Amino acid sequence: MSTQSTPAYLPAPAGEMGLLTDLYELTMAQSYFAEGMDGEATFSLYIREYPPDRGYLVAAGVDDALDCLAALSFNAESVAYLRDTGIFTEDFLEYLGDFRFTGCVRAMPEGSLFFTDEPVLEVTGPIIAAQLAETIVINQIQYQTLLATKSARCVQAAEGRPIADFAARRTHGGEAALRMSRVSYIAGFGATSNVLAARRYGIPPTGTMAHSYITSFDDEAEAFRAYSRMFPDRSILLLDTYDTVNAAHKATVIAREMEAEGKRLTGVRLDSGDFDALSRQVRRILDDAGLDYVRIVASGGLDEYALERLVQDGAPIDMFGVGTRVGVSADAPSCDMVYKMVGYNGRPVMKLSAGKASLPGAKQVFRRHDGEGAMAGDIIGLDGEEVAGCEPLLDTVMIDGDHTRPLESISDARQRVVQGLASLPEEYKSLRSPARYPVSISAGLARLDRQIRNEIATLRSQ
Amino acid sequence: MSTQSTPAYLPAPAGEMGLLTDLYELTMAQSYFAEGMDGEATFSLYIREYPPDRGYLVAAGVDDALDCLAALSFNAESVAYLRDTGIFTEDFLEYLGDFRFTGCVRAMPEGSLFFTDEPVLEVTGPIIAAQLAETIVINQIQYQTLLATKSARCVQAAEGRPIADFAARRTHGGEAALRMSRVSYIAGFGATSNVLAARRYGIPPTGTMAHSYITSFDDEAEAFRAYSRMFPDRSILLLDTYDTVNAAHKATVIAREMEAEGKRLTGVRLDSGDFDALSRQVRRILDDAGLDYVRIVASGGLDEYALERLVQDGAPIDMFGVGTRVGVSADAPSCDMVYKMVGYNGRPVMKLSAGKASLPGAKQVFRRHDGEGAMAGDIIGLDGEEVAGCEPLLDTVMIDGDHTRPLESISDARQRVVQGLASLPEEYKSLRSPARYPVSISAGLARLDRQIRNEIATLRSQ
Repeated sequence: MSTQSTPAYLPAPAGEMGLLTDLYELTMAQSYFAEGMDGEATFSLYIREYPPDRGYLVAAGVDDALDCLAALSFNAESVAYLRDTGIFTEDFLEYLGDFRFTGCVRAMPEGSLFFTDEPVLEVTGPIIAAQLAETIVINQIQYQTLLATKSARCVQAAEGRPIADFAARRTHGGEAALRMSRVSYIAGFGATSNVLAARRYGIPPTGTMAHSYITSFDDEAEAFRAYSRMFPDRSILLLDTYDTVNAAHKATVIAREMEAEGKRLTGVRLDSGDFDALSRQVRRILDDAGLDYVRIVASGGLDEYALERLVQDGAPIDMFGVGTRVGVSADAPSCDMVYKMVGYNGRPVMKLSAGKASLPGAKQVFRRHDGEGAMAGDIIGLDGEEVAGCEPLLDTVMIDGDHTRPLESISDARQRVVQGLASLPEEYKSLRSPARYPVSISAGLARLDRQIRNEIATLRSQ
Repeated sequence: MSTQSTPAYLPAPAGEMGLLTDLYELTMAQSYFAEGMDGEATFSLYIREYPPDRGYLVAAGVDDALDCLAALSFNAESVAYLRDTGIFTEDFLEYLGDFRFTGCVRAMPEGSLFFTDEPVLEVTGPIIAAQLAETIVINQIQYQTLLATKSARCVQAAEGRPIADFAARRTHGGEAALRMSRVSYIAGFGATSNVLAARRYGIPPTGTMAHSYITSFDDEAEAFRAYSRMFPDRSILLLDTYDTVNAAHKATVIAREMEAEGKRLTGVRLDSGDFDALSRQVRRILDDAGLDYVRIVASGGLDEYALERLVQDGAPIDMFGVGTRVGVSADAPSCDMVYKMVGYNGRPVMKLSAGKASLPGAKQVFRRHDGEGAMAGDIIGLDGEEVAGCEPLLDTVMIDGDHTRPLESISDARQRVVQGLASLPEEYKSLRSPARYPVSISAGLARLDRQIRNEIATLRSQ
């Protein structure tokens, strides 16, 4: 039973989703198939190390990953292509032709705060299905989590000033542009410039004008006048095409003309130069003209660090547009998110690679809050364990490949980020060198970890 | 006439491509429409500053951008959504319902080397069409150019050793994963792990096994044995699940067993630890067992800097897999690529913003080669100028919204990168602090630049 109401927006046509994977997923599956290995496997998706200066992560892309899994199949052309590679056996190709993802998935909901080593998602199912989920699950959740996290840091830094997503031209493709709009809104942005994203996700669209608009007129003031004539209720005039201060004076003239028509200029936008100095100059020019209601928007190369500085220095900027640096998570465009097998055929398993060891067994993450409702530490335990007074974060979202609940609404996910950040103590939210949020391991998991390490050591010494 | 043979792979459904844009493109278009501004505009797409340590850029994504432009339209649902925003007039919405991109495009072909300030693409057309092209053109060409450039740098560093694209799980979405496979192959990679990309673009697919494969067996040697039994002609055994050196010894046992069956182990893969030291240890173990034909593959966190060090230090690695850092262009995930209006209604225009000034007029890029065929400097001139002894790089690729030639074949684009890099002198290819390739401005363009600056200064002083 699928309870999904709107069609999924997949990164590849449904019948080709099976091929949107690394070849080794398919060669491993072929080997499992040939060996008759059809036991149940569990894989954990988690981040091993924080990206620089991150003290928390915002889970995002989970629902997109689930949509991809629900669509994971191989149409006739896909099977024909695989046949042509000469790598696979005919009975396995037939199996792939009928393949549907039949795993069960437990996951944190979209917008959850999570920390290193904590599984944000676990897949349990026949080993071939669970293995074939790997590439697309990481592909969807890793970058969306990074973009959501970077966006949440901007929201923190802006201290209540609205932020709009202007990233569409800088994201890595159109799919990423849509996702950036969605996850930045979940993280607390107020609007997006991306019209398709606004429509698909129900986000307020926003936009002003580009330099090209100004240069297409013989005269800057004429451009301002034409725009405000067209959009008397939503004009934000771009000031930096030729000279910001000069243009601010022209904007006051336009605003006065609008007042004579009973209209009000919404704002002006700074897009280059020293935002702190320019915003103060422009504010003064506007105020001196009695235009204290005209808002100042700044955009261009902004990120959480720039926002923090401008806000703390008291630059009179009312609204920010962010794009380039946030839409690619510039200082952490990728991270060490992995999808590791933690159990097979009733047997917990782990990997011991230098610096990359994994914890064995299907897990649950338990969150403890103190008396004031502040997050006080997480415990990674085994699935099925109970930890008194703690909230379990992973919930069953898919059984046998079917969604068990409707996808999250974007407003629910957004609310979850707000609540999460409100209950996360300050020291873990610092934009630079945050303290490490306490994540411990349950007694049950610690015991299992020791046991499996011993078993592997014994095997290796044989 | 469209000469395109295979269906385009668009970042949004065709009828929704018009909405995959920034709102301001549409509000500006509405104003142009209302003002009766239908003059011809020219926009230049170029990069203002080199990303860190880059001395050249590899043009990529041009053909995808053209496909997006050919599909740029607004279906009934898109128009209905725009109507609901309350921003647009009914006559403009009707115009959008019938809108097709009718501009002409001149561009450098996929795989061309280019440098700062040089237009890689120019759009000339009715101002609304040319303006509406902006967001998607930058969105497609910017990141693909960055990924192609990063990949080309890896190819340089590998000095002939084959490289495979393993980036599918780290790119920003599925669309970016497909493009990464394509542009890295154009840049000189030999294969991709991404099966859908391999099929769509005709790239050799490649893959080995994951740690999960090893851990799904009770015993590492059993896993190796099962895999090589299944794929006797293409087995590359992953060594670092528990202990690399220990696993190398097991691999020699497997290889001997394969020899007894008349088969040869293809290779082994290192995926963590000190690649230089481990590759030497593993090479010795293999050679001591008479397995000098078994190749060593290294993967995990590699980029051009790591490849350069390993190759220069003589680490005995035969093949590299790169993913994480290259698939997001980690040290330069975005750049300052802009799409600027340079002419409107027969009048050259420019922008003077601090540090962001643009050059006026429709342009051509002329490349000069010395007597030995080495690239000796580019000249940015005006479209229509001729510069003796130089090759013009921009070619007409679209007229009135129709492709004028088939899209580039991936092998032609790949060959273009090989030739370009072969003719680019060493100093501009250094992976760190390269010299600045000489790009000058033609006398005609310099004259026009001075003239427009003077006109703007005169206007501003009025």
